[in-house]
Amino acid sequence: MKAEIIAIGDELLIGQVADTNSSWMEKQFNDMGIEVLRSVCVHDEQQQILYELGEALKRADLVLVTGGLGPTKDDITKQVLCSFFHTGLVENDEVRRHVQALYKDRPDILNSLTATQWLVPECCTVLPNDVGSAPIMWFDAGTVDRAKIVVSMPGVPYEMQYAMRHHVLPRLQMLGKQQYIIHHTLLVHGIAESALALRIASWEDALPAHLHLAYLPKDGIIRLRLTGIMPSSAIENEGVLEQEMQEQLSALLPLVRDYLVATEDLPLEVILGELLGGKGLTIASAESCTGGKIAELLNRQPGSSRFYKGSVVAYSNEVKQNVLGVNADDLSQFGAVSGPVVRQMAEGCRHLLDTDYAIATSGIAGPDGGTPEKPVGTVWFAFATPCGTSSWCMHLGKLREQITDRAANMALLHAIGILRK
Amino acid sequence: MKAEIIAIGDELLIGQVADTNSSWMEKQFNDMGIEVLRSVCVHDEQQQILYELGEALKRADLVLVTGGLGPTKDDITKQVLCSFFHTGLVENDEVRRHVQALYKDRPDILNSLTATQWLVPECCTVLPNDVGSAPIMWFDAGTVDRAKIVVSMPGVPYEMQYAMRHHVLPRLQMLGKQQYIIHHTLLVHGIAESALALRIASWEDALPAHLHLAYLPKDGIIRLRLTGIMPSSAIENEGVLEQEMQEQLSALLPLVRDYLVATEDLPLEVILGELLGGKGLTIASAESCTGGKIAELLNRQPGSSRFYKGSVVAYSNEVKQNVLGVNADDLSQFGAVSGPVVRQMAEGCRHLLDTDYAIATSGIAGPDGGTPEKPVGTVWFAFATPCGTSSWCMHLGKLREQITDRAANMALLHAIGILRK
Repeated sequence: MKAEIIAIGDELLIGQVADTNSSWMEKQFNDMGIEVLRSVCVHDEQQQILYELGEALKRADLVLVTGGLGPTKDDITKQVLCSFFHTGLVENDEVRRHVQALYKDRPDILNSLTATQWLVPECCTVLPNDVGSAPIMWFDAGTVDRAKIVVSMPGVPYEMQYAMRHHVLPRLQMLGKQQYIIHHTLLVHGIAESALALRIASWEDALPAHLHLAYLPKDGIIRLRLTGIMPSSAIENEGVLEQEMQEQLSALLPLVRDYLVATEDLPLEVILGELLGGKGLTIASAESCTGGKIAELLNRQPGSSRFYKGSVVAYSNEVKQNVLGVNADDLSQFGAVSGPVVRQMAEGCRHLLDTDYAIATSGIAGPDGGTPEKPVGTVWFAFATPCGTSSWCMHLGKLREQITDRAANMALLHAIGILRK
Repeated sequence: MKAEIIAIGDELLIGQVADTNSSWMEKQFNDMGIEVLRSVCVHDEQQQILYELGEALKRADLVLVTGGLGPTKDDITKQVLCSFFHTGLVENDEVRRHVQALYKDRPDILNSLTATQWLVPECCTVLPNDVGSAPIMWFDAGTVDRAKIVVSMPGVPYEMQYAMRHHVLPRLQMLGKQQYIIHHTLLVHGIAESALALRIASWEDALPAHLHLAYLPKDGIIRLRLTGIMPSSAIENEGVLEQEMQEQLSALLPLVRDYLVATEDLPLEVILGELLGGKGLTIASAESCTGGKIAELLNRQPGSSRFYKGSVVAYSNEVKQNVLGVNADDLSQFGAVSGPVVRQMAEGCRHLLDTDYAIATSGIAGPDGGTPEKPVGTVWFAFATPCGTSSWCMHLGKLREQITDRAANMALLHAIGILRK
C-alpha cells in the first residue's frame, strides 16, 4: 500500500506553524509497511486542495488529509471533500451527541458555529474523535478493481495522533500489508560522515539492491539507517528479509564498533534513562548554557521518576555560588566558563540533590559574550560520579540553538558512555 | 513572486526527521512579500525529484530545494540538478579552498568523498556556505520573457538558515517585490474559538476581499491573524494596505480586549522576557510536572540573563523538601500536586534564587499517577511575588506532552498578566 499526505492550512505556508503531523504519521506508516510517496502542504484554497487530492489518488492507494476542520470560516476542508466526492453535508447524530457531551459544562462553546462540527459529508464513515470536536472522516474512493481510501483528520497534533492510534491505524491494519519495510538504525558518534562512509564503503557497495543505507547526521550524532524492502506476497518474506538484514548488520557492526552509541533509533535521553533505570541509579543536571534543556529531555519520558529527581538551572553566577556552592574566587579567577567552575557545579548538584550522577554545562551560547580565548561555542562539561568528577571542553559551533542542542547531546552521550563501561 | 519548496530526503518521509526547514523559509519569504504556493517532501529518488522540479517551475517563479547534498551515495540532488539543467559536474576552486580551510585540522574529513563536495553543476552560480561544506547553488532557469530561479541548499537547518540569511535572501531582495503581503496577529486567551468567531462575526463579514482572517488555536492560545494582499504595482500601495489594516484592527481590538495577550505574533517567553527586562525584574521557575520546560523557554532567547538567573527542577518530593524547603507534613497530607505544596515551591524558589518572581508547577502529566480526585491532566500552579503568592489549579488534557506544553504556556500567561497590571 502506498500513501500520500496532504496537510492543509495557510499557517503551514507562511511559517507560522510547522507541519509536524506528516512526520508523525509517516513514522506509524513506516512501522506498518506502508510507504509514503510524498507529503505536501497546501493553502486553505478549494482549487489547490481538489488538484492535490486528484493527483495523490492517481499515485497512492491511501491519502491522508489533515487540517481545515475547525468551526471558523477559514476552514473549508469538509466543503472541498463534498465537492470532490460529489456529495453534500448532513447532520451526524453521533458527532452531535459527542460534541454536546464534550462541552456540557461550557455553554459558551455550544453555539451555532460549534453546531457546524456535526455536519459531515454524506458519503463518508465518521470515526470517533474522543479528544476533540472535529469529525474524523473515512472515504472509500476505490473502484471495483482497486481499493482507494481518503481519510480526513483534524490538524491539531494531539487530536490527529489520538485518531490515528485508536481508529485509523487499526482499520488500516485490517486491510493487510502489501510489502515489508524493515529499518535498522545504528547511532554513531565521534567520526566524520565522509570518513565513516569510506570506512564502510566496501561493505556498502556489496549490499543487494533491495537493501539501502542512509546517513543522517544531526547535532554531533550520525544515524546510519539500513532499509530493506520486499513484497509481502509470501508470509515468510518478512522473516527472510529480517534475517538477511541481521547478517548484514553483523558484518557492519565490527566496522563501526569504536563509534557506536546504540543499535536502535532511540533518543539519547531514552537510552540513558533505560541504562539508569535498569541499574537503579539517579541523575541530575546543573545547567548554565543549556538552560534546562537537559532536564527537559530527561523528564520528557513517561516513568522518568525512576531515575530523575530534579535539576538546578544555574544561569547567573549568583545561583552558581549560592545554590550549587561554587567558590567565588574560582568564578572570578577562571570565569564561569571554566573547568574548575563546571566541576564544582556538577559536584554541588550531585550533593544537593543526592543523586548518583550529576552532569554540568557552562558555555558561551552567543550571540554575545565571546572572547578570543573563549569564542562563542566554547562549552565546558563536568560529570560527577561516586568515583570522582571528570571535566572537558568542546567547541560546538557558532549559532545559539546549535550550541545548546549539541551541548545537551554531548552531555547525554558522555553519561551513556560512562554507564556502558 | 511566487515560490515553491521541495525538501528532499528519504528520512523526511519515514518520520525519522521532521521537515522544519520549509516552515523557516516560508516565514522569511512571507516577510519579504513572496507567496509560497506549496511545499513538498520527496524521496532521494531521481524521477520523483525531476517531476517535482518540472511541476514547481510551471507554477512558481522561485523553487527552493533543500537536502541531498552530503558526500555519501544516498545524496543525489546535485546529479539530478545536472540532469534537469542538461549540464555536468565541474570542480569549483572556491568551494575546494573553502572546504580545505574548514577542515584544515581534520585530516580524517579531508578524504576522497569530501572532495566530491567541490564538484558543482557547470551552469550554476555557487554562493558561499560559510558554516558547512555543501555548496549552495543558484540556477537561472528563466526564459527571455520570464525570470525563473532554482536554489539548492543543504538540508542541515543551521547551514540552510545561514545560507538564506546571508546569501539567498539578499539576492532575492535585489529582484524586487511583486506584491505586498502584510500580516498582523493578535494573541488571545480565555475564550473558545467558536465563541470568539461569533463575537467578531459582523466585523469579519465586513472585511474587504483582499483582507482575510485566520484562527490558529494551539495549547490554550488562539492566534488571530489578519492578512492583507495587494499588488506592488504602486509603491504607495504598501502604506495604503497597512493603513487599511490598522483601521480594521482598531475596530477589532475593543471586541477582543478582555482576552488579549499580545498584538504581535511573539512566543510567550519573548513577551514575558521583554516585560521583565524592561522593568529590571527577574524570574525563576520551580518545576515538577513541566520538568525544565519553562526554564528552557525562558532561557532560549539571546539576552535572557537580563531577567533570568536560574531555576530548580524539583521532580521528586525529596528535592521539593530539601532544596525548596517544602514542608514534609504538607507533602504527606495534601500530596505533591496541591495548593499548599506548589505555593511553598514557588516561595522557596523565589527565596533560594533571590528573584522578584517565581512560578511553580506540580501536576499529573501521566500516563500513570491519576486518581479520581486528581485525574491525569490536573496541574497546580503558584506565582510568588514581592506582594504575596497566588495559586490555582487547571485541567489541561489527557496526554503527557499536551499537558506539559499547556502547563508551561499557562504559567507564562499568568506571569504576563501580572506584569501587565
